Amino acid sequence: MAALKNDRFLRALTGQPVDITPVWMMRQAGRYLPEYRATRQLAGDFMSLCQSPELACEVTLQPLRRYAMDAAILFSDILTIPDAMGLGLYFSEGEGPRFRKTIRTAADVEQLPIPDIARDLGYVTDAVSLIRRELNGSVPLIGFSGSPWTLATYMIEGSGSKDFRHAKAFMYNQPEQMHQLLDKLAQTVTAYLNAQIAAGAQAVQIFDTWGGILTTQAYREFSLAYMKKIVQGLTRESEGRKVPVILFTKNGGLWLDDIAESGCDCVGLDWTIEIGRARSLIGNKVSLQGNMDPSILYSTPDAIRAEVKRILASYGPGSGHVFNLGHGITPEVDPANVSAFVDAVHEFSAQYHQ
Amino acid sequence: MAALKNDRFLRALTGQPVDITPVWMMRQAGRYLPEYRATRQLAGDFMSLCQSPELACEVTLQPLRRYAMDAAILFSDILTIPDAMGLGLYFSEGEGPRFRKTIRTAADVEQLPIPDIARDLGYVTDAVSLIRRELNGSVPLIGFSGSPWTLATYMIEGSGSKDFRHAKAFMYNQPEQMHQLLDKLAQTVTAYLNAQIAAGAQAVQIFDTWGGILTTQAYREFSLAYMKKIVQGLTRESEGRKVPVILFTKNGGLWLDDIAESGCDCVGLDWTIEIGRARSLIGNKVSLQGNMDPSILYSTPDAIRAEVKRILASYGPGSGHVFNLGHGITPEVDPANVSAFVDAVHEFSAQYHQ
Repeated sequence: MAALKNDRFLRALTGQPVDITPVWMMRQAGRYLPEYRATRQLAGDFMSLCQSPELACEVTLQPLRRYAMDAAILFSDILTIPDAMGLGLYFSEGEGPRFRKTIRTAADVEQLPIPDIARDLGYVTDAVSLIRRELNGSVPLIGFSGSPWTLATYMIEGSGSKDFRHAKAFMYNQPEQMHQLLDKLAQTVTAYLNAQIAAGAQAVQIFDTWGGILTTQAYREFSLAYMKKIVQGLTRESEGRKVPVILFTKNGGLWLDDIAESGCDCVGLDWTIEIGRARSLIGNKVSLQGNMDPSILYSTPDAIRAEVKRILASYGPGSGHVFNLGHGITPEVDPANVSAFVDAVHEFSAQYHQ
Repeated sequence: MAALKNDRFLRALTGQPVDITPVWMMRQAGRYLPEYRATRQLAGDFMSLCQSPELACEVTLQPLRRYAMDAAILFSDILTIPDAMGLGLYFSEGEGPRFRKTIRTAADVEQLPIPDIARDLGYVTDAVSLIRRELNGSVPLIGFSGSPWTLATYMIEGSGSKDFRHAKAFMYNQPEQMHQLLDKLAQTVTAYLNAQIAAGAQAVQIFDTWGGILTTQAYREFSLAYMKKIVQGLTRESEGRKVPVILFTKNGGLWLDDIAESGCDCVGLDWTIEIGRARSLIGNKVSLQGNMDPSILYSTPDAIRAEVKRILASYGPGSGHVFNLGHGITPEVDPANVSAFVDAVHEFSAQYHQ
């Protein structure tokens, strides 16, 4: 593998000094970019795009050609795992992801196969290898997975949901079966992320998009416990370097203490908590990633620059901060505003690293 | 007015001793009840139901005939205010509320009229008077309004939203116009709630459904500041008794300290925070309302009873707790499970009030 030219991102994740604050964006390879939309059209549908290592590599690299991002993230979808478990993922226009089969009974959980990563998800690890080659050491590559709880919500609902009625009823009515399901998912996620690391991912992020809909007690028992298991099972060193792990629970601001105790290296923050407050709570234990409101990208370069300054000041001096949005960038954002964002992070952060 | 026979709810809101913990449910007059659906069908559409004092009174009383609720809440909708401001509220089947006109420019804000409550919202105060008569002192009546920020989001978007793109862009790009809009709304909400109090509401709740989508700084500036203004402008005594004010910001768990400083008597909690933790943070200043996950009502009576016990134990001994769900009850819930819920609160709470 080519030597890494820009390791700011990996250094910040482990609290080592950096020259400027590294930055990337969740969903940076996405629909706000016209070149993404063109590649997506070429692929036909979304899953074909995910399943083609060449096209997944192409869209992974697209934002790096435009912006001074300090990391690339594998282009894929969190729902590749349930798809590999035989649930039949498809995307209907304007309606988000759907599954042909859902998990509703003890028998459904019992019969659910644990995928063979090489056979069923080889297209993902192939994409990782290809992206690493193409990156040629320019920036590190992030691998990722959904959290077991988040994957389970989609598998039970069969789609996204407003109130997660079926997933929560399953949890409250059949807690043992829910644990069985989450355990299968945790095993699979561990193997999946380790396969991504073996293929060249230099850091990994677990997306717990729906942990924040739970009570504190249920979050600990049904979401965080399984993320901890995964963290314990991950390959933590590769190519002679630590492979940092980022845990991101959207709407998890009340549980930062618990998340920081999980064994992860970095806690991802949505935009609802002040990053300075988060640092004073858990900054002695972990790095922090975040946390600009993605909606500010609908605003003007001036407003974006002001918000970047505010967040950098809130975090304060020293390493341990990876700048990011508090959630994925949305499709309607003007790509020019992303330049303003990324450049502002680099421009205004130097003073905090002297 | 008839003397109040059951004042547990009002006593708990002001921290006075009670025999058992009072309970009511957000959206307790709603679609989960077959008799509500029948009345709604009779009314034709949702707004006709809101605008008929007789029918609004009827559905307000329906849950009290089934369950041992300790309070009634006026049946209405938070969007009556923007409707009275000329935006043309309507409900399209399965799509939620919509407005014919939206607020997108400085001129839109400038031209927005401040409603005359008696003329434009007299149907609401008429309903309050009628409900008070019909309640005949059995339990207190709660009046309510949406928060200025929450109303503004609907007025700018023209409907509900996933990412509140337009509302947030308006806030970030035109903060002065946003403040002007919020100021008009705060004036209107104050007059509206005072009119409800004058008509007989014995407590009021401000619903800040969408404050939780903001950054901490924006929440303080664009949502909480206007709720504080309203609290300062409210009639706080009526019929020789204090009129308590409840503030409920969904996903506001990170900001409880700030909310408790607003001058309100009670802070509404969604289900994501442990109520015992909330009590230790702000229980010396305010009462707490909440906070069972509404999804538990999809479960079994046994699971519901266990969760009620857990929440009562988490709050601990003494007054200052109004039991409620952490958000409105959803339409698909089995009405029998609501009995299990309400009765469990009364049955298991006596031991905490000896």
